[in-house]
Amino acid sequence: MTENALIRWLRRQEPALAELLGDDAAVLPPLPSPAVTVDSQIAGIHFPEGLDPALLAQRLLAVNLSDLAAMGASPRYGFLTLSVPEGFDHRRFFRAFLKACRIFGVRLAGGDLASCRQVTTSLTLVGELPPGGHWLKRSTGRARHDLWLGGTVGESALGYHLLAAGAQWQGNRISLPKHFEAPTTVARAARRAIRRHLRPSPQLELGRWLGQQGAGGAIDISDGLSLDLHRLCEASGTGAEVFTQQLPTAPKFEELCRQLDQPPLDLALSGGEDYVLLFSLPTGTTPPNEFGCYPIGRLTQTGDLLAVTSETTQPLRAVGWDHLARPSH
Amino acid sequence: MTENALIRWLRRQEPALAELLGDDAAVLPPLPSPAVTVDSQIAGIHFPEGLDPALLAQRLLAVNLSDLAAMGASPRYGFLTLSVPEGFDHRRFFRAFLKACRIFGVRLAGGDLASCRQVTTSLTLVGELPPGGHWLKRSTGRARHDLWLGGTVGESALGYHLLAAGAQWQGNRISLPKHFEAPTTVARAARRAIRRHLRPSPQLELGRWLGQQGAGGAIDISDGLSLDLHRLCEASGTGAEVFTQQLPTAPKFEELCRQLDQPPLDLALSGGEDYVLLFSLPTGTTPPNEFGCYPIGRLTQTGDLLAVTSETTQPLRAVGWDHLARPSH
Repeated sequence: MTENALIRWLRRQEPALAELLGDDAAVLPPLPSPAVTVDSQIAGIHFPEGLDPALLAQRLLAVNLSDLAAMGASPRYGFLTLSVPEGFDHRRFFRAFLKACRIFGVRLAGGDLASCRQVTTSLTLVGELPPGGHWLKRSTGRARHDLWLGGTVGESALGYHLLAAGAQWQGNRISLPKHFEAPTTVARAARRAIRRHLRPSPQLELGRWLGQQGAGGAIDISDGLSLDLHRLCEASGTGAEVFTQQLPTAPKFEELCRQLDQPPLDLALSGGEDYVLLFSLPTGTTPPNEFGCYPIGRLTQTGDLLAVTSETTQPLRAVGWDHLARPSH
Repeated sequence: MTENALIRWLRRQEPALAELLGDDAAVLPPLPSPAVTVDSQIAGIHFPEGLDPALLAQRLLAVNLSDLAAMGASPRYGFLTLSVPEGFDHRRFFRAFLKACRIFGVRLAGGDLASCRQVTTSLTLVGELPPGGHWLKRSTGRARHDLWLGGTVGESALGYHLLAAGAQWQGNRISLPKHFEAPTTVARAARRAIRRHLRPSPQLELGRWLGQQGAGGAIDISDGLSLDLHRLCEASGTGAEVFTQQLPTAPKFEELCRQLDQPPLDLALSGGEDYVLLFSLPTGTTPPNEFGCYPIGRLTQTGDLLAVTSETTQPLRAVGWDHLARPSH
């Protein structure tokens, strides 16, 4: 398929696209308060080579939406680059991408297609402040705020290790690594970890709720709880205490860690790519139950970050995913 | 260097960055009329492997600015993704990138760094309509408009062929292919073609002047004159006549084509990556001399695109660069 043929096909899928895709740049309606974010997804780095293009499309969008969620923004427009080797199923990618865009209220407004030996894609999202919202910032955490997580941590890293050990997701079927033998409940948890890793859920609703509170700092967990907490605290000028015995993890998390020979606390603290929000709120303000949030500690006056258990208090090191380190998948 | 160390270094280079780079997304000032464009540059596809990171930075920005030029926009903000193998000189890239951004009035407002086997980078630019401007569109060409080029065509393709034959640009020195033997004037033209290919000049001033006229269609020549003219005519609902004996080419163009065994007319019509504007204007309106524009034909009522010489009239085929075709560099 030529580029022109693909663009014609795309316009048929989404007639509203034609208006925005026809020129060298897309002219958007006035944006009183635009928030812009960009992220890449590269085969062999962010996801396994050979991943279903439909899953890649969903992951690309979700990971980027998570950044807007951490700002309390509502997504509006997307700009895509997609550079792939011969044989890549563009239509499968775009069908899934456009469907996911519709679900989250994103309009694909422009892009760039190219060929490349390694599947490489990036997405720029433009979001807006919803009515009555305030921007969520990393810098607005305050000492004595409670520290919260929007969901469990470490599960995505388990999914990563399962994929590294040979698990695969093809069509509707997730197959576990050959040597993996576990009770049904653990196998089910393993499949869920793989889904969590490849297709995370951006917490846009929670982000908007937080933005309406007008107090507290927020960041999304992409590089690991401890590293992202360091960023939040650095920007806010606070320290933090994390009750590490209280960290929320997925069902059967410890059993899966044992199976995969991974230390559970390390995965929870530095596994990364959980794409839940890490945020602070004044004591007494509690997120609605529907968001499934967990209190995990509090922000403090001093610059130290501490891991606190019932027995010990230790420094919490800023260890996590470094994007300039070697390839991972 | 870790990602955090690089970001700290970047903030020292450009203190204004700190404000925009500190959160999961950049919050921009209100944009009454934003134009957004995105383009990638990938090693081995858009430029030769091993290219000086400073040249890559300049090329990435120039190619994207050319899209804003074709809209009559003024550039404002940039969002970068940069995914590179170990050993890539990030600081050299960013020093050149930030310098070029300052020259063109672009503020780097966000980005994403990753590792990747192939140097892969994309840039999203946000531009605005300058005071008194109108958007330039592909669709606003009209029958009987004169057709103009903002500069010469085919020179960039010559530069590409010289690089493919072994020419190199390192530091300040451009070395020509080993077997290349030509008089000094031709060798000078060869070096200029390489510079033109690797470091094109976006025609932002010309674009803004065209935007002030409020009439005529425009596109930038990225995929080749004939293919981009087909796009302009398709969007405008016109045909075109191109006086192919009158196409503007660089000095010594024919000699260089002979040296490289390339057909001059093919290069001029479908070489691509010239990054000059192709535009139409009502008869009687002439761009100021300073822009160095050339009349090359006119738009017509019928849907046909014709190559017209003093002897013949032939169909002008839509042949040019297809981004889904195989790797090129």
